[in-house]
Amino acid sequence: MSLHYPSVLLENAVNEFAKLPGIGRKTALRLVLHLLRQDVSQVEGFAQALVTLKQEVKYCRSCHNISDSEICGICADRSRDASTLCVVENIREVMAIESTSQFNGLYHVLGGVISPIDGIGPSDLQISSLEERVRQGEVKEVVLALSATMEGDTTNFYIFRKLHPYNVKVSIIARGVAVGDEIEYADEITLGRSILNRTPFDESYKLK
Amino acid sequence: MSLHYPSVLLENAVNEFAKLPGIGRKTALRLVLHLLRQDVSQVEGFAQALVTLKQEVKYCRSCHNISDSEICGICADRSRDASTLCVVENIREVMAIESTSQFNGLYHVLGGVISPIDGIGPSDLQISSLEERVRQGEVKEVVLALSATMEGDTTNFYIFRKLHPYNVKVSIIARGVAVGDEIEYADEITLGRSILNRTPFDESYKLK
Repeated sequence: MSLHYPSVLLENAVNEFAKLPGIGRKTALRLVLHLLRQDVSQVEGFAQALVTLKQEVKYCRSCHNISDSEICGICADRSRDASTLCVVENIREVMAIESTSQFNGLYHVLGGVISPIDGIGPSDLQISSLEERVRQGEVKEVVLALSATMEGDTTNFYIFRKLHPYNVKVSIIARGVAVGDEIEYADEITLGRSILNRTPFDESYKLK
Repeated sequence: MSLHYPSVLLENAVNEFAKLPGIGRKTALRLVLHLLRQDVSQVEGFAQALVTLKQEVKYCRSCHNISDSEICGICADRSRDASTLCVVENIREVMAIESTSQFNGLYHVLGGVISPIDGIGPSDLQISSLEERVRQGEVKEVVLALSATMEGDTTNFYIFRKLHPYNVKVSIIARGVAVGDEIEYADEITLGRSILNRTPFDESYKLK
């Protein structure tokens, strides 16, 4: 359905919203009309929050995560184990892993994965700075937590080779049947992985 | 999953996005991170388009549709039939009906429907200005095109009574089985309506 906008200002605002991923023109219109019903101050607050973020955002000098300061809260936290680095694609994975409360080391945010089809090579990612962190000698283990995709795997191998000269253990998060999933519906590669990587079971084992 | 934001600026921007209807916190984060990857000028353009719209938007003095000028393009168009008014809730219905190319009259945008539960009464809507347009005598037919909901029906009856003293025909858009729908899955009220309001059929009849 082609839409006839009664106002150029309206159309501009819809066009801007429709540039966002997963937002079609109809959703964009609904969001813009919602904002139109709010006070001017609320719309300005919305706009200002985005501009301020973009203008003032910092990236942690150490792990490259988004931060309000030179060194992010996680890297600055002395209670965390600086000998274990978890390598992730971006800040969303940091937040997801943090919310599990199962990891007490530090992170290294690559900013993506190697993807020749999208023109993203190793030099576009924070891989040499990872190598530099490892070279300094404090890191004992690097945990790879990238997407289980072709690109993620390529990146895993690349990092593994780069870190090979150093005395560092490289591990990868477990692939297996997700908690809550039924075995019969798991794909065969995942199921195969979960059998190969089976772990000892005792009475203390709980799915939580 | 509760999320730990590594940056207050980021959290503010996510909070603003998450206020929009249908946007949860995870989607909001995805959108904000997308904007973060754009140029400053693009983020500023996005913010500016919204603020400009809110500050400079006008509503047509005649039909109350969103407009860039005092009188909107539809009301100003002399080739349109000013004797037929289509009453709609808001601008989205104007755009939807315009895209059908089946209506050549003018519109009257109520700004909503009567909904006591949301505290919206007749005086919150553009009903008295509709009565005033009809009172001036040029309008011959008022087509009601409100939602087929309890609130839409209430509003239809209210408008019908308000316009009763005037010499104007009041009609309502057809309710029936939607094009592409299968009869067996239509609800009984819609199906009943479509039987009551059956229309003559001949060789020229086409679903388009």
